[in-house]
Amino acid sequence: MSDVKVIEIKKSIFEENGREADELRAELKSKGVFLLNLMSSPGSGKTTTLISLINKLKSRLRIAVMEADIDSDVDAVKIKQATGIESIQLHTGGMCHLDAEMTRQGLENLPLEDIDLAILENVGNLVCPAEFDTGSCCNAMILSVPEGDDKALKYPLMFSICDLVIINKIDVMPYFNFDMDKCLSNIHKRNPKAEVIPICALSGEGVDRVAEWLMERIADWQK
Amino acid sequence: MSDVKVIEIKKSIFEENGREADELRAELKSKGVFLLNLMSSPGSGKTTTLISLINKLKSRLRIAVMEADIDSDVDAVKIKQATGIESIQLHTGGMCHLDAEMTRQGLENLPLEDIDLAILENVGNLVCPAEFDTGSCCNAMILSVPEGDDKALKYPLMFSICDLVIINKIDVMPYFNFDMDKCLSNIHKRNPKAEVIPICALSGEGVDRVAEWLMERIADWQK
Repeated sequence: MSDVKVIEIKKSIFEENGREADELRAELKSKGVFLLNLMSSPGSGKTTTLISLINKLKSRLRIAVMEADIDSDVDAVKIKQATGIESIQLHTGGMCHLDAEMTRQGLENLPLEDIDLAILENVGNLVCPAEFDTGSCCNAMILSVPEGDDKALKYPLMFSICDLVIINKIDVMPYFNFDMDKCLSNIHKRNPKAEVIPICALSGEGVDRVAEWLMERIADWQK
Repeated sequence: MSDVKVIEIKKSIFEENGREADELRAELKSKGVFLLNLMSSPGSGKTTTLISLINKLKSRLRIAVMEADIDSDVDAVKIKQATGIESIQLHTGGMCHLDAEMTRQGLENLPLEDIDLAILENVGNLVCPAEFDTGSCCNAMILSVPEGDDKALKYPLMFSICDLVIINKIDVMPYFNFDMDKCLSNIHKRNPKAEVIPICALSGEGVDRVAEWLMERIADWQK
């Protein structure tokens, strides 16, 4: 039905995920590949945000995407169709998160020598993915306006481990009881250093700021 | 700051969750208590839906609510303030779901002899809660319009174990690319028997149907 690659990911046999993650980061560094781990709730707009972001960056960076889902390949197909870049689907076999070894299994299916930026779209879940270091160089998350301004209070670990919090769907703010100041205050309570960028992935508003932020991080990483 | 009871839930020491769940169901049956397990993504409107539902049912049933969250007690406080019924907060200590033993720990803090309907608001997560039988008499979930019509494809287990799928936030359908027919078709692909009820928890639209559906289930259970 579709021509994207689907990888069946197996659960890690290594207990020491932290060590695995550090090793993977070192390898990526030696290869000059920056790995971004993008997390969020189901339906907050990870795929739409990635499409907008990739279309802004693909003339400056060689990019590939790994789409993790329990089932289906709709996201990998969407990314490939909308951006033309390499996109593979990782099936987690019911698992609620990816760890470093599972991420490595995904990366082995990408042509790393031809890639500057690899993006992992993690399983839609604000709890478990926060507990497992994937070996990424940077953690980012999306919170969408319809989810509410109190999420940092309820899912503290996720907000505390992310370098970047993207607030998506700001176009529908008038239709929701969402207080941006309260949201920012809740996020910074959990993580005073978090960069917060409001966007509308559909229209592209704010996505330039995300692109610039990421370019700076990649430049720092490559130093 | 608030006067709701907060329970620190410990991880189950029992491996055999299925057996524990069946035992809990039998005990609840003998006490005439119907336990509803309500699940969803973060921010899909579980608490708002419960407030609307409880206010419709509280003259006909004696109700109590257990609000499970990793942290904070905002939901239990909201329920108590908006409905006046008994509401306790269960802190899961970072856990992404509740199992039967954890649910039992919560129920032990409720006056079961004075309750017809106990409602468990599970952790906001479409993955892990689906894997653990809580001992509930009925599983229900909320999918909100902003999350998209494709979620049943991506989170198959959750949709397959729910007797009732509530589609919330139908008031904002004009602002989202959400196809109700496609959504229903995706849900019924996973679970042909699922009852699906569209609602707007904020205005109360459709909540009467949820209340009637639940009253029928409770009547069947008490036979």
